[in-house]
Amino acid sequence: MRTWGIGTALLLLAACAVVASGAASQDLKKWQKGKGWGWVWGPQDEVGSLNEMTDASRLAALRIAKTGKVYDLGILYDRTSYKWPGHSPGEIISFRTPEGVKRQADSPALVTDNPTGTAWHSCALFLNDNIATQIDGLGHATEGADDHWYNGFKEKDWGGNWGPRKCDASTIPPIVARGVMIDVAGAKGVDSLAPNTAIGVADLEEALKKQGTELRPGDVVLIRTGTLRHWGEAGADHAKIGPADSAGITLEAAKWLVEEKGAMMIGSDTSGLEYGPKPEETKAYREKYKSFMPVHNYLLIQQGVHIGEFHTLEELARDKAYEFGYVCATNKIKGSTAGFTLRPLAIR
Amino acid sequence: MRTWGIGTALLLLAACAVVASGAASQDLKKWQKGKGWGWVWGPQDEVGSLNEMTDASRLAALRIAKTGKVYDLGILYDRTSYKWPGHSPGEIISFRTPEGVKRQADSPALVTDNPTGTAWHSCALFLNDNIATQIDGLGHATEGADDHWYNGFKEKDWGGNWGPRKCDASTIPPIVARGVMIDVAGAKGVDSLAPNTAIGVADLEEALKKQGTELRPGDVVLIRTGTLRHWGEAGADHAKIGPADSAGITLEAAKWLVEEKGAMMIGSDTSGLEYGPKPEETKAYREKYKSFMPVHNYLLIQQGVHIGEFHTLEELARDKAYEFGYVCATNKIKGSTAGFTLRPLAIR
Amino acid sequence: MRTWGIGTALLLLAACAVVASGAASQDLKKWQKGKGWGWVWGPQDEVGSLNEMTDASRLAALRIAKTGKVYDLGILYDRTSYKWPGHSPGEIISFRTPEGVKRQADSPALVTDNPTGTAWHSCALFLNDNIATQIDGLGHATEGADDHWYNGFKEKDWGGNWGPRKCDASTIPPIVARGVMIDVAGAKGVDSLAPNTAIGVADLEEALKKQGTELRPGDVVLIRTGTLRHWGEAGADHAKIGPADSAGITLEAAKWLVEEKGAMMIGSDTSGLEYGPKPEETKAYREKYKSFMPVHNYLLIQQGVHIGEFHTLEELARDKAYEFGYVCATNKIKGSTAGFTLRPLAIR
Amino acid sequence: MRTWGIGTALLLLAACAVVASGAASQDLKKWQKGKGWGWVWGPQDEVGSLNEMTDASRLAALRIAKTGKVYDLGILYDRTSYKWPGHSPGEIISFRTPEGVKRQADSPALVTDNPTGTAWHSCALFLNDNIATQIDGLGHATEGADDHWYNGFKEKDWGGNWGPRKCDASTIPPIVARGVMIDVAGAKGVDSLAPNTAIGVADLEEALKKQGTELRPGDVVLIRTGTLRHWGEAGADHAKIGPADSAGITLEAAKWLVEEKGAMMIGSDTSGLEYGPKPEETKAYREKYKSFMPVHNYLLIQQGVHIGEFHTLEELARDKAYEFGYVCATNKIKGSTAGFTLRPLAIR
Repeated sequence: MRTWGIGTALLLLAACAVVASGAASQDLKKWQKGKGWGWVWGPQDEVGSLNEMTDASRLAALRIAKTGKVYDLGILYDRTSYKWPGHSPGEIISFRTPEGVKRQADSPALVTDNPTGTAWHSCALFLNDNIATQIDGLGHATEGADDHWYNGFKEKDWGGNWGPRKCDASTIPPIVARGVMIDVAGAKGVDSLAPNTAIGVADLEEALKKQGTELRPGDVVLIRTGTLRHWGEAGADHAKIGPADSAGITLEAAKWLVEEKGAMMIGSDTSGLEYGPKPEETKAYREKYKSFMPVHNYLLIQQGVHIGEFHTLEELARDKAYEFGYVCATNKIKGSTAGFTLRPLAIR
Repeated sequence: MRTWGIGTALLLLAACAVVASGAASQDLKKWQKGKGWGWVWGPQDEVGSLNEMTDASRLAALRIAKTGKVYDLGILYDRTSYKWPGHSPGEIISFRTPEGVKRQADSPALVTDNPTGTAWHSCALFLNDNIATQIDGLGHATEGADDHWYNGFKEKDWGGNWGPRKCDASTIPPIVARGVMIDVAGAKGVDSLAPNTAIGVADLEEALKKQGTELRPGDVVLIRTGTLRHWGEAGADHAKIGPADSAGITLEAAKWLVEEKGAMMIGSDTSGLEYGPKPEETKAYREKYKSFMPVHNYLLIQQGVHIGEFHTLEELARDKAYEFGYVCATNKIKGSTAGFTLRPLAIR
Repeated sequence: MRTWGIGTALLLLAACAVVASGAASQDLKKWQKGKGWGWVWGPQDEVGSLNEMTDASRLAALRIAKTGKVYDLGILYDRTSYKWPGHSPGEIISFRTPEGVKRQADSPALVTDNPTGTAWHSCALFLNDNIATQIDGLGHATEGADDHWYNGFKEKDWGGNWGPRKCDASTIPPIVARGVMIDVAGAKGVDSLAPNTAIGVADLEEALKKQGTELRPGDVVLIRTGTLRHWGEAGADHAKIGPADSAGITLEAAKWLVEEKGAMMIGSDTSGLEYGPKPEETKAYREKYKSFMPVHNYLLIQQGVHIGEFHTLEELARDKAYEFGYVCATNKIKGSTAGFTLRPLAIR
Repeated sequence: MRTWGIGTALLLLAACAVVASGAASQDLKKWQKGKGWGWVWGPQDEVGSLNEMTDASRLAALRIAKTGKVYDLGILYDRTSYKWPGHSPGEIISFRTPEGVKRQADSPALVTDNPTGTAWHSCALFLNDNIATQIDGLGHATEGADDHWYNGFKEKDWGGNWGPRKCDASTIPPIVARGVMIDVAGAKGVDSLAPNTAIGVADLEEALKKQGTELRPGDVVLIRTGTLRHWGEAGADHAKIGPADSAGITLEAAKWLVEEKGAMMIGSDTSGLEYGPKPEETKAYREKYKSFMPVHNYLLIQQGVHIGEFHTLEELARDKAYEFGYVCATNKIKGSTAGFTLRPLAIR
């Protein structure tokens, strides 16, 4: 009985430890070291590497939490917020206000038959779906003369007027996974990386070593450049954010993360994750990489790996919180090309 | 040493058990039985009852998860989706498409200097902020000749053209709490409650008893009417959804949940949570309750308790999953009056 | 001197009479009886039959005015207005209001440094470009596997994300021409034609004869069905407008107007000008005419003749004002497919 | 009979001459020299000085046309067009395209039952109502603690969520009047006036004298600064347009035009008609004039005189065409605060 007592207790503790360590995430279904994923999930798949999630991997991610502290990785959006200029602008406009409801009396019963003078606020929003804290859907980037995206879906078959009809952001499952923050800016001892900083494999390895973090297959990997240190309240200081926003990972770093480390999703605190060359180097860069956004081509189209953008990592950096449970669910809007104005959570 | 072994192990197990049971949520900071909350969080507060969350309560909620199964409580939104007709309509429109990018060549460098023919999809969205799966911000409902909302914020002080400037949805903190689903439709043995069904205290008690669930202070309580059984792909069948959508809780039930049970947030699978009377009973109802939406007045304005709307509970009902960790974070858009097109998660 | 006096005066009077009669419009540049126009204006042309206008024809049209009475042929648009359900919905929303400007103080200098408390109203509009009183651009309708429109412009060459890049509504020149209203409803002695009334050549001839009007090459011909008798303030009564809106001209009537009579533009008081068959006759109709809108194919694509829609003709009918100077200029918005919310003028 | 012949002919000729000279416009209904108008049209009036138009005045204006040449005073608008930054941005977006219609097949009958492959283009527009060529409605500007506008309409009574409910742009009647262009830039011998040029009474008098034009009560007066020489295709060169746009008339000039000359509407080729001081002079200017836009306060609110903005006058200037028939009708949109993307016509 004593033995049972001790034994059972120890077994339970051991079970607990295993779960908490996230060991389950090491046995991925389709990932191959040296190759990553690709179009391996069947011809109708719209989910990509996120298919790797299982109940066990999610449970392990949730169990990373030890204190219940939650970090909000979202940044506040308003009409002034910095975004890529190729996207449409945004307005949040009061559609109904209590004064308007009462003055217009366009719903007479709500005005006359209403002793407490109850009314409401609601807003009409005109937004682009690539704003603030985002997760790119696998239909966001296209390539080729046939304009195909992940898994070979082609514009002539699956394009539309109301967004792509395959791999829109509503197909992104809720993401619950082990998250790792790689604080490149921190490892370099700077608040924010210089504009046009290319983050290569060595930079990631150096930062991981300094912070003592190990990557595991199935991770959501978030890379900190420090760009969002300039966000302020709502991203109005474009002159500061814009240049910083060009720091990012190289194609080689993206490949290393996916093919060697099994990163299931990769994000950063910039609007595009990837390195942007200086104007005078742009032409040569595009000739070499054959695209103006080779990391997007590689991750979204070729590997089926989602990209996280404008995730603020400042508070995680301050707390040296490098490992966490990452929880995020995108807006459920048919045809949208990305989740937007999100608040991914890092739970600890 | 043996003693230490046993003792430590048992202590740890005990600690584990306490955490997992969510016991921490019983000691709320400001809630008073028989009274609930109200404007108790200081004159500048915009958060209301969600201030009750602590690291401990969040950790307890996360620890409810035993298998890692995640339920997505969000419903898919598109231009056809049912919503209250007083809100503005919605469109998701392709803003950029690969063919358009190439034909227009309005960014010449992206077309000519681009050997892989890389391009992209993005969408422009025109949306109301009260659509699909929602959490109402505390600035949504107003009352009185001074058009005030929660905590006494008045339109003349805090109104604006770009949404209310106090208690917008960006002030709603990430919600991580014990969630309880009360399956009223299930308890009544129907797929979906009849239109204009008033759910009172006895109905809630009956369902709780049948399903063997106990409410605890600090819970997110979700009440199932079965309305979203009619949602289909994206809510296009207004003729079915509309009538069902009028089932909901009475003011008395809302008071009981808040004042007797300490519900920190209350939601349902309808667009408005609360009971809507038949046309011929509407006038008498409004005279009695002095508002066309007395549950909103009570919860949002008077108690500072957020309302969850259009949370789909069908899968939870199928699995008889009555207790779960509820995790949801609203869009982070300044001025918005509600979180919208959300995907709250129920983790088990 | 007397002779001179008489002779000169009579000559001048005669000249006056010639101008006023609109005689100049009889010598069109490209129109051929029995054929109409077609793609006769050169391969880059985006204007079509409106190229026929000359200073002389415009002057003649202006000289039709004898009293200076002006009829406003536009109908009022708001969010409730009837339109074809395949178009996007519309909202006119207060973007800035004096109270909002002052409460927000987002432009501090405009609030503090402003002794008179000056402020302003402006609105944000979300609109479709095919609403209320319209003139369809020649890029509105397409046909063929190559999706071409007037003059052979093809989608693969001239499509775009921001509207068609050939024949948008901004290419429509200001229209000043002799206008003729054919009051078919009046000739039939009804307020409004029955739903699905097909207006054929005989109906037009009958009405023209009854009203004593002669068509001339270069005319803007407006056909009255009486549909807008149901418009009310702003077109909210869809149940009445919708059915009436299906009355319209047949393809044969359109051909007669263009090929035999030289109509330079054809319009009516419905949303689509052309006859819409009853549901049970729709399939046969489409098989016969090979399109769901053969009059659009014929006029816009094949002939380069613009279509006027939702022109209210009620007041003209009341005054039996069958001939007038028609003056209309569309919105000058690049990429728009139609002029909208217009107020064409009939001057008398 | 001879006598009758001669007499009648001469009488008719004389009548013709009177009409063509526009003499009818000298007898205005309410204008008083030295005072102008004001709130003289009755307490419900929303039209202001445009009430002066009569059949006779319109006919006289139309008869100014001698050749039938028509000048389009509108400028082309697209997403890049310069506008005051306090207005909401704009997008013209393809809502339906032939490829989209066919790929989506969301209206199956239009795709399958359609042998010619007919389809269509339409656009969704997100616009501000103060863009490109405009006419400000009398509800655009407000003043006072009670936020009133023309004729004493107050925000608390006539404000709304969907635009002001009195004096919206749909109340502006079709304008047909004698138009006079005062070419101030031409008189000064410059292409475009220097930034922050204040155009005073003497400048107007000098230009009128040089060009030999006489103002008459009831005129639409358009003042040329040359700013739209920088518009290019669609106003994308903000760096050039912005500074030039600050040239305009002083309050004294506005008063002289209205009170001494009876101008029924005043416009120019800038976005705001009135003089904008240099930054360093702004504070003193506002203290003196008690408003950041005193000409707007005076014309719109106090006098009920509409303002025309961004009317291009370049071609009129080239042709030294100083007198013309001005014809313009604003969009008929309920609640809109200005007519926008207009094409006013100058007929000669």
